Amino acid sequence: MFEWRELLGQDAARDDDAAVAPYARTLFRAAPRPAGVLRARDRDQVVQIVRAANRHGVALYPVSRGCNWGFGDACPAGEDQVVLDLSGMDSVHSIDADLAYAVVEPGVSQEALAGRLRADGVPLWMPCTASTPDASVLANAIERGWGHTPYGDHFSHVAGMEVVLGDGSVIDTGLGRFEGSKTTFLAKGGAGPLLEGLFSQSNLGIVTRLGVWLMPEPDCFLGFVLTLGERGHLGELIERLRPLRLSGLLPNPVHVYNDVRAASFLQAIPRDELEEDGALSDGARRALRNRHGLGPWVATGGLYGSRVEVLAGVRALRRAVSGLGTVRMLPPGILAAVERAARVPARLGVAPARRLLEQVARARAPLDYLRGIPNDYALAGCRWRVRALTDPDSLNPLDNHCGLYWVVPTCPARGSDTERLVELVEAVCRRHGLDPLISITLLSGRMLIVPVHIAFDRLDEDESTRAESCHHDLLDECLAAGYPPWRVGNVGFDRLGDSPYSQALARIKRALDPGGVLAPGRSPAPPDRP
Amino acid sequence: MFEWRELLGQDAARDDDAAVAPYARTLFRAAPRPAGVLRARDRDQVVQIVRAANRHGVALYPVSRGCNWGFGDACPAGEDQVVLDLSGMDSVHSIDADLAYAVVEPGVSQEALAGRLRADGVPLWMPCTASTPDASVLANAIERGWGHTPYGDHFSHVAGMEVVLGDGSVIDTGLGRFEGSKTTFLAKGGAGPLLEGLFSQSNLGIVTRLGVWLMPEPDCFLGFVLTLGERGHLGELIERLRPLRLSGLLPNPVHVYNDVRAASFLQAIPRDELEEDGALSDGARRALRNRHGLGPWVATGGLYGSRVEVLAGVRALRRAVSGLGTVRMLPPGILAAVERAARVPARLGVAPARRLLEQVARARAPLDYLRGIPNDYALAGCRWRVRALTDPDSLNPLDNHCGLYWVVPTCPARGSDTERLVELVEAVCRRHGLDPLISITLLSGRMLIVPVHIAFDRLDEDESTRAESCHHDLLDECLAAGYPPWRVGNVGFDRLGDSPYSQALARIKRALDPGGVLAPGRSPAPPDRP
Repeated sequence: MFEWRELLGQDAARDDDAAVAPYARTLFRAAPRPAGVLRARDRDQVVQIVRAANRHGVALYPVSRGCNWGFGDACPAGEDQVVLDLSGMDSVHSIDADLAYAVVEPGVSQEALAGRLRADGVPLWMPCTASTPDASVLANAIERGWGHTPYGDHFSHVAGMEVVLGDGSVIDTGLGRFEGSKTTFLAKGGAGPLLEGLFSQSNLGIVTRLGVWLMPEPDCFLGFVLTLGERGHLGELIERLRPLRLSGLLPNPVHVYNDVRAASFLQAIPRDELEEDGALSDGARRALRNRHGLGPWVATGGLYGSRVEVLAGVRALRRAVSGLGTVRMLPPGILAAVERAARVPARLGVAPARRLLEQVARARAPLDYLRGIPNDYALAGCRWRVRALTDPDSLNPLDNHCGLYWVVPTCPARGSDTERLVELVEAVCRRHGLDPLISITLLSGRMLIVPVHIAFDRLDEDESTRAESCHHDLLDECLAAGYPPWRVGNVGFDRLGDSPYSQALARIKRALDPGGVLAPGRSPAPPDRP
Repeated sequence: MFEWRELLGQDAARDDDAAVAPYARTLFRAAPRPAGVLRARDRDQVVQIVRAANRHGVALYPVSRGCNWGFGDACPAGEDQVVLDLSGMDSVHSIDADLAYAVVEPGVSQEALAGRLRADGVPLWMPCTASTPDASVLANAIERGWGHTPYGDHFSHVAGMEVVLGDGSVIDTGLGRFEGSKTTFLAKGGAGPLLEGLFSQSNLGIVTRLGVWLMPEPDCFLGFVLTLGERGHLGELIERLRPLRLSGLLPNPVHVYNDVRAASFLQAIPRDELEEDGALSDGARRALRNRHGLGPWVATGGLYGSRVEVLAGVRALRRAVSGLGTVRMLPPGILAAVERAARVPARLGVAPARRLLEQVARARAPLDYLRGIPNDYALAGCRWRVRALTDPDSLNPLDNHCGLYWVVPTCPARGSDTERLVELVEAVCRRHGLDPLISITLLSGRMLIVPVHIAFDRLDEDESTRAESCHHDLLDECLAAGYPPWRVGNVGFDRLGDSPYSQALARIKRALDPGGVLAPGRSPAPPDRP
């Protein structure tokens, strides 16, 4: 730690228990403990740190804000890795209101960017993900996060990376490598090969700056909630939504949730109604649905554009669900009006007004995601199987021994494949005594991702073990069935198998990080694995 | 050649003049002569060839169909390179009508893919570029070509590469690396770094298969031609089109042409009206405009979607050009009706009907690009400065000693930048005694590209030299002014300058092509340059 302290100061380089403990917390059953923690304040410090790491043969594990919950938290990918915390690099370098982008450092949170746009009165929406408002915008994009605005495939809506490579050299990808370039953040381009993809879900470099595209606020926005009448209608729904996604009539990635996943945002699992196999009975699921007004599948999405376009979307959507379920439109203005009307009576203690306010708040949160307003609505889902909250006031899942693994298979946007994959997921989860918390995100008109939320109580050792092996089996079986993952967490990389791709990646790793100092093990490349 | 002949057969491996000559033809002033020509029939032959090239230290220059006119033709990037012709690999592996994509080999031409879709009655439109129908779909996409449908940024609309690396290993990028994957062609994804970008504008591998996304035929399509009243309105037009491109109201990359560029599709330069500096006078340009009914700037684009959406687009477009110019809508149905009505009188020799038919054909060709129908309308532009056609019946520019260099700077989608860049381009072209043939493509709502078409007569040595130095100066001065190129031709790579990016690229090149056998010099990476 001596050289680090010289470099960064006493407080920014620590390996004592008190300093390391916050970075050792995990939602996994278990995760490697950091060997120390370094905090960088700027790009040059990152360079110095990487050079020193090479001199001393120390492995670094960079984290932006450490909220990659269910994929790896702030914990390193392997033993003997020093966490490099980038959350202090939290500048929004610039916002271009005309060309609709922001340039951010890794430490900029969703909340900070949204707040900055609000404060500056810039009518642009950030690509919002349904994680904590505290999560890093940059990290979510490069980790191939997804969200709820029409820019829902986040990595497809960024350009202009500054990257510190494993030997401490700093590259600008694409158009930004040319001095004085005016188009750095406008497209992944520039003559010659495109390197941006190399630094996505990657341990090939540390991204210290990124241009993030923002969506101009449309003239008109309308959220919707779609409720299927029957479980078996899912495939047909996908068949009908596909052309709307392909044509752009539905511009945002519609998110479909099964009943338990939708309920997990609103309450904990009713443990007294668990079957012997540890999952909820059909009757208990029916009761959940009735209680919250859910169908076996519910979906949220939005329509954006001119009034005319939005109305065309409404018509198309109504046609698409006809005979399968219902669709309810949620104009944000109406929610706001109800809220205004109920506020005074609620304050005076009128119970129905109070309940109404609660309902509006609950309806508004997922609606807000659709227009780039981050909030913590979805975090409650992490508590699904937690028996007794240790810190009920905190929504941070690390404070309440929440356990979580994500598995995110890809799936063709076809009814038959969707049904087959859902069946597979349900079977694997039930085999491990866990309820399948499934969502389906129509990332494009061609492909869905099916994020499976494997929640568990970390204080329950048996459940933790089952959750971990559920993650492993699910990843393996989805792969075997032809539904490979969109992204994986730190425990997923070594399950991806060897291929000429991973061999080539290993050669690139050796070329860009010859000392192997960046996040060893956080890669599908075989020789890099611990 | 002996081992090649063993491998490929007598006719597929040649170094005699007759065989080499067709690959030595160029639109540049001069280009390196191939050392020989190999023709591969399948992926395995490509692998064998690459392995043999490593054994013998021979450099290969892969070409798909050799129509990269103005960027490099079929000619190698340097001396002593053997052309590897992939045009015989011309299978359309599959077309998925639901998920809207085709899987193609490098030899599949625009015409072949469009023809296949037509023959199979599949209502999908290919991403059409305004080059020859004979050009490779795969190569255009990986070389970052652009086109006229809403999928106009072609590289952004492909997934699932099969690539032969420089050591002969074969990788599947992204989701296709997992055996039995059902999502190979649906997204650039899959856990871990994305490698697709590495093989775009690249000499890092030979792409032998690619998934190309196709656009579902919309319910309604309307082409338009927009004519500006004054030269100085260009900046304001860009300002007004930007929000429409950002919001998606204008879903396709509108192409804006200056008067000479638009005229170049319709006639040759009136040489007797050239000024002393070799460019057309203002008066001559006015005459050209009057003759063809052009403005100082004209634009073509399309509106797509439901009837209602298209009508909303029409209204927005009319508002956008109000006070700046006029916009004429061109429903393809009306053109077809006019054609039907005029056909019989034209055949009977009625002159006005004949002229009408010609006009309709001329209006339809650029309109066809907008809906994925390739044609040779734009090829005439290569003849702009050719004095005497040697083969008037051939539209192949190689048959008529046409000369051509492209320079393609990027530019923010801002009026002020667009005007500054256009001014720069005009000044450089005029300095070299050439007319600035400029088009502007609104690739997105954030960024334009400004393809400059430096046409010349290859039989005119002085003009050829001026064109070549015009290319060099223009590339250099655009770079210096902050407008770096979207892509470059074989003569552009060594003008891009060194940067940490190019150094990193050189390391990747050594990792993936240790023998340096693939297209040496065709890269911005410094140590790779001849």
